[in-house]
Amino acid sequence: QRPAELGVKIGVLPSGEFNAITDVKGVKVGHFTFIQGDNVRTGVTSILPYDGNIFQSKVPAAIYLGNAFGKLAGYTQVKELGNIETPILLTNTLAVADASKALVKYTIALPGNENVRSVNPVVGETNDSYLNDIRSFPLQPEHFAAAIDAATSGKVEEGNVGAGTGTVCFGYKGGIGTSSRKLPETLGGYTVGVLVQTNFGGNLTIDGEAIDEILEQYPYRKQILGSVDGSCMIVVATDAPLDARNLERLAKRAILGLGRTGGIASNGSGDYVIAFSTDEGLRVPYDTSSPTLTQSILSNDHMSPLFMAVIEATEEAILNSLWAATTMTGFEGRTVKELPEEEVLKILKKAGKLKK
Amino acid sequence: QRPAELGVKIGVLPSGEFNAITDVKGVKVGHFTFIQGDNVRTGVTSILPYDGNIFQSKVPAAIYLGNAFGKLAGYTQVKELGNIETPILLTNTLAVADASKALVKYTIALPGNENVRSVNPVVGETNDSYLNDIRSFPLQPEHFAAAIDAATSGKVEEGNVGAGTGTVCFGYKGGIGTSSRKLPETLGGYTVGVLVQTNFGGNLTIDGEAIDEILEQYPYRKQILGSVDGSCMIVVATDAPLDARNLERLAKRAILGLGRTGGIASNGSGDYVIAFSTDEGLRVPYDTSSPTLTQSILSNDHMSPLFMAVIEATEEAILNSLWAATTMTGFEGRTVKELPEEEVLKILKKAGKLKK
Amino acid sequence: QRPAELGVKIGVLPSGEFNAITDVKGVKVGHFTFIQGDNVRTGVTSILPYDGNIFQSKVPAAIYLGNAFGKLAGYTQVKELGNIETPILLTNTLAVADASKALVKYTIALPGNENVRSVNPVVGETNDSYLNDIRSFPLQPEHFAAAIDAATSGKVEEGNVGAGTGTVCFGYKGGIGTSSRKLPETLGGYTVGVLVQTNFGGNLTIDGEAIDEILEQYPYRKQILGSVDGSCMIVVATDAPLDARNLERLAKRAILGLGRTGGIASNGSGDYVIAFSTDEGLRVPYDTSSPTLTQSILSNDHMSPLFMAVIEATEEAILNSLWAATTMTGFEGRTVKELPEEEVLKILKKAGKLKK
Amino acid sequence: QRPAELGVKIGVLPSGEFNAITDVKGVKVGHFTFIQGDNVRTGVTSILPYDGNIFQSKVPAAIYLGNAFGKLAGYTQVKELGNIETPILLTNTLAVADASKALVKYTIALPGNENVRSVNPVVGETNDSYLNDIRSFPLQPEHFAAAIDAATSGKVEEGNVGAGTGTVCFGYKGGIGTSSRKLPETLGGYTVGVLVQTNFGGNLTIDGEAIDEILEQYPYRKQILGSVDGSCMIVVATDAPLDARNLERLAKRAILGLGRTGGIASNGSGDYVIAFSTDEGLRVPYDTSSPTLTQSILSNDHMSPLFMAVIEATEEAILNSLWAATTMTGFEGRTVKELPEEEVLKILKKAGKLKK
Repeated sequence: QRPAELGVKIGVLPSGEFNAITDVKGVKVGHFTFIQGDNVRTGVTSILPYDGNIFQSKVPAAIYLGNAFGKLAGYTQVKELGNIETPILLTNTLAVADASKALVKYTIALPGNENVRSVNPVVGETNDSYLNDIRSFPLQPEHFAAAIDAATSGKVEEGNVGAGTGTVCFGYKGGIGTSSRKLPETLGGYTVGVLVQTNFGGNLTIDGEAIDEILEQYPYRKQILGSVDGSCMIVVATDAPLDARNLERLAKRAILGLGRTGGIASNGSGDYVIAFSTDEGLRVPYDTSSPTLTQSILSNDHMSPLFMAVIEATEEAILNSLWAATTMTGFEGRTVKELPEEEVLKILKKAGKLKK
Repeated sequence: QRPAELGVKIGVLPSGEFNAITDVKGVKVGHFTFIQGDNVRTGVTSILPYDGNIFQSKVPAAIYLGNAFGKLAGYTQVKELGNIETPILLTNTLAVADASKALVKYTIALPGNENVRSVNPVVGETNDSYLNDIRSFPLQPEHFAAAIDAATSGKVEEGNVGAGTGTVCFGYKGGIGTSSRKLPETLGGYTVGVLVQTNFGGNLTIDGEAIDEILEQYPYRKQILGSVDGSCMIVVATDAPLDARNLERLAKRAILGLGRTGGIASNGSGDYVIAFSTDEGLRVPYDTSSPTLTQSILSNDHMSPLFMAVIEATEEAILNSLWAATTMTGFEGRTVKELPEEEVLKILKKAGKLKK
Repeated sequence: QRPAELGVKIGVLPSGEFNAITDVKGVKVGHFTFIQGDNVRTGVTSILPYDGNIFQSKVPAAIYLGNAFGKLAGYTQVKELGNIETPILLTNTLAVADASKALVKYTIALPGNENVRSVNPVVGETNDSYLNDIRSFPLQPEHFAAAIDAATSGKVEEGNVGAGTGTVCFGYKGGIGTSSRKLPETLGGYTVGVLVQTNFGGNLTIDGEAIDEILEQYPYRKQILGSVDGSCMIVVATDAPLDARNLERLAKRAILGLGRTGGIASNGSGDYVIAFSTDEGLRVPYDTSSPTLTQSILSNDHMSPLFMAVIEATEEAILNSLWAATTMTGFEGRTVKELPEEEVLKILKKAGKLKK
Repeated sequence: QRPAELGVKIGVLPSGEFNAITDVKGVKVGHFTFIQGDNVRTGVTSILPYDGNIFQSKVPAAIYLGNAFGKLAGYTQVKELGNIETPILLTNTLAVADASKALVKYTIALPGNENVRSVNPVVGETNDSYLNDIRSFPLQPEHFAAAIDAATSGKVEEGNVGAGTGTVCFGYKGGIGTSSRKLPETLGGYTVGVLVQTNFGGNLTIDGEAIDEILEQYPYRKQILGSVDGSCMIVVATDAPLDARNLERLAKRAILGLGRTGGIASNGSGDYVIAFSTDEGLRVPYDTSSPTLTQSILSNDHMSPLFMAVIEATEEAILNSLWAATTMTGFEGRTVKELPEEEVLKILKKAGKLKK
């Protein structure tokens, strides 16, 4: 059972059907989870904005640098041109190059891309080296392809899967989490979906309750000072017709959701937000025979409900990642415990936070 | 009594002596409060990095654009050169030009500045036009000078004073608030002080409790959609020896504190963070006879505790502004009620949030 | 006679009818020139994107920071929202506040703006204090209004007029200059117009000829080291349907035109480029009753000819400002000589650069 | 003979001993040139800020996005932290991933880096696919290592070598070029070195002479419209003690040098500038046991001569790349001709531009 099903209610907006990034129509997510022997605990997660040749018909996009101590690939071209032309892959820090190459090979091999000679792969990462033998480069080229092939719509697996296989969050086992919000029709009826790869620290707060302090974990010393190489990757999808400028503004708000979980975007935490719109009218054709693009875009003044939606969905996606992750033992025999859900539920109940 | 004195504990770090931006040694704050007749409810707040000729000996600084729907003056030069050369003034939206001119006149009139012919005034603003007849331009040149002259160290007045006289926050009366955090000596012993001018909306959350929802204010419709011209100005001071790059990173974290109060940085909210260091070794002399500056600066890896400090101090400063502000009637007979402190305390007590 | 009429050909693209920013249909320019007594040599130049209530129907825009040692007003909101809502004023450094206030007053007084309580004035500046007693604040509120009122289409006065009255460029008398380029129909047929306020230094180069070196002015010591408070304001207008992102890219290219004249964007030179599109289909209504805007925008891949156009027009506009400016004596009896046009023509002729 | 030896004098400042980036003490450059069969025309160029473990003792650095239609790796962390921790590699567009992985492997294999689990490789690229079968991924892991191993101080090979093996510039054969400038002692005596990988288009201008127009190449149609996938990578080294903020300002000026050669930073041209300082006092230790760094940095006001130096060196480096490159036949039998040096010399002589 996910927190929302247990009565934990984050924010005021309703979720979509799956409470997942895939509630944004067309978006698909795939995982390749790699657990091997005692030391390999890593993986790959793919997010496909839609099912098709993304290079030939690019999606408007923006990447926000929450704290850019990280190795994300693809930022500069997205900033300049305002679009993404490949699936998005998340993986571990030292696998960014291999993931990038896999995306390039995937793209140039697609039917219709026979003459493509320039591709901008978008790859995010967090550092899973506490549980994973990252220096051994366990991920192989076929593993990235597998994550793309595995992408499906509907329910998304969370926790110790894909790029979240070996991550650590607030000192507990982190992983992949997802959530969504759907605006009422009077505010446009748009959906905002978020997927996170959680591997960061701070002062864990769940629905306003400072869990670490209550559990007497003395979070400050342990978490902050011990989490220098953490990170949080946040991917935001929406069907709202947003151009790159407003997608960047939307991406920027996601960090407020991270803040609400007690995250502090510490020096060593590479916190990036990748946002894209699935609106078909905003696709950018590779074939540039027409000099102009005719588009209907949402105006600035109608952005605020989307901002609220992305904050809520990010907060809940992070919580979901912690909830789904389970205790794991990995590299050099280290063990990271899962969030003690029973105790957390007691705390939330005592504070009147369980709505069921 | 301020919230902290009532047992509301925001975060894990201790505050400085005054729990105010003035806990950063040398920083002074002054207010000019202008309440006149039925329609004038505005003012000016000054923040002086130190007592002296700031133009001749500039302070390292950065301004972070949380959401730049606002008229703040001085951004571009601070970004380029990394320093501030005047006191900082906060005021209402339409008074930025007058405040800027006042700062220029103040600066060129200082002894030693007889030949100065270029000044970069830094002025922040929020829009108090709900309670204040902003189109009548009530503030006069001498009022800005008065706010500078009034600057003192020690205790800082909060609530309906200075630039916070007519502001509205989460549908309640907002105003000026301030708070500080002091790091333990093992983490450098530095102080971070924050002063806010609160005039924004969202989903009010106090120490993790969703006040609006509990009080059945249906915040979404009222607050978000009704607060298009809000804003939050945040001024951050620290004695930590930070250069402009790390000051920008520090400023960026302050927005996480705003997020923790339920702020969403709505489209119409001009949310800016101005951060400076008071470290004397980092002053930038106007006299450039020496080509190099020798400085001791904090390294990136030691920033995280400061990030946590600024998040906590911002969250508490916003709360303090709401707590200190009192019900006000102004322009066109409109009334904005103060935060119902008794009810809030009951909610916090019930949730186990009062530490006393 | 302007340089183009004398056979100086900058670049390969043709100019518009007036070889001026006003070749972009609808754009108007106005000057208020203030020469008084021995010491006042300053003024104001207005650029109106179109004739009408710009606040109610904003134009897409971007501002590029070439070197942000300057006091330009309005940057942050333009960056966030992607539009300009007032006429653009250029003036002297210490008059930015007064110009800003004049724009606010102008805007809130327009019919239809009775309830407007927030205005983002855009004001550029350069420092004319070598010839002008800038510390005396000679410009009065009515002078800014006069510059707006004086705005007309068609031919634009250049040289010692408006905001260029007291400026100095490459050690010679600078001022206002303008130029335009018109693309062939096969490349869209768009017009790009540029207006500059020249007050900067470097190594003067005219159509590739290093004038200073040839005239043995030892430019390095005199110009660079003596021009710390210079600046160049560049305003770019186009009828191409560009959104804010591509307008920023266009603005960025204008600096290459400055570079071709020998400008180096020295530390003290506040070099800003303000670009806007006059395309009526891209106007942003203040009335936000419709949530979406339907627009036809130029795609990234068709930007290159516009980039070439803005580089050429900027180079020629700077040259035109030098050509039109005449020797001036001002503050404290200082004299700045005009460009020695006869000698320059000889140099150009010798180098084979005169096309007539 | 290089242009300077033939009497072509770019700018007013003197060059260093080798007129190369290696004039900045400690900097080394290495090439791996890969010409194989009919279709492989590519390579790798390495730039080492100094000889040693760069990860353990990082150099202050900045990357400027002239036009970010490109796949450069490493940007975001350099922007956040202000330093570079690996050698810099330049290569072809589709080899960025392999080059990145090679840098990671190189770094973690260095003595002292046994526990390093996070590396930020910096790789620049241009697209050599006109002459090189880029889709065949010819470069192998050992080729990147070879380029690093080959790095030497002193004279730098130019033209069809390393990452410039298959590039095209202004329709002629491009390649690697380098140049330097040395400031007089009165201006600090610092050296600025530039290395370029030229693969871009525009309106070729050599020392102010519009070569294309004179040679009747109708450059506009051919060059601009035909150069969509070009790019120019610019690497700037200096021994001036610059922090990351002023290194970014220095990097920004390099683009003015590109503009002086007729470059227009066309839509498809990925133009990036990577700048670093070799000053030993500014090294950033990986070992963070000391919380503060004591540094002597150049003040803003002393930057202008360095700006002039980087503009001149960039212009000359581009020219040098064209001069050294020779006619090449490659992929699909295509041939790109070298710059017709004899004709260019005649043009320059006629215009009085040869100083010998």
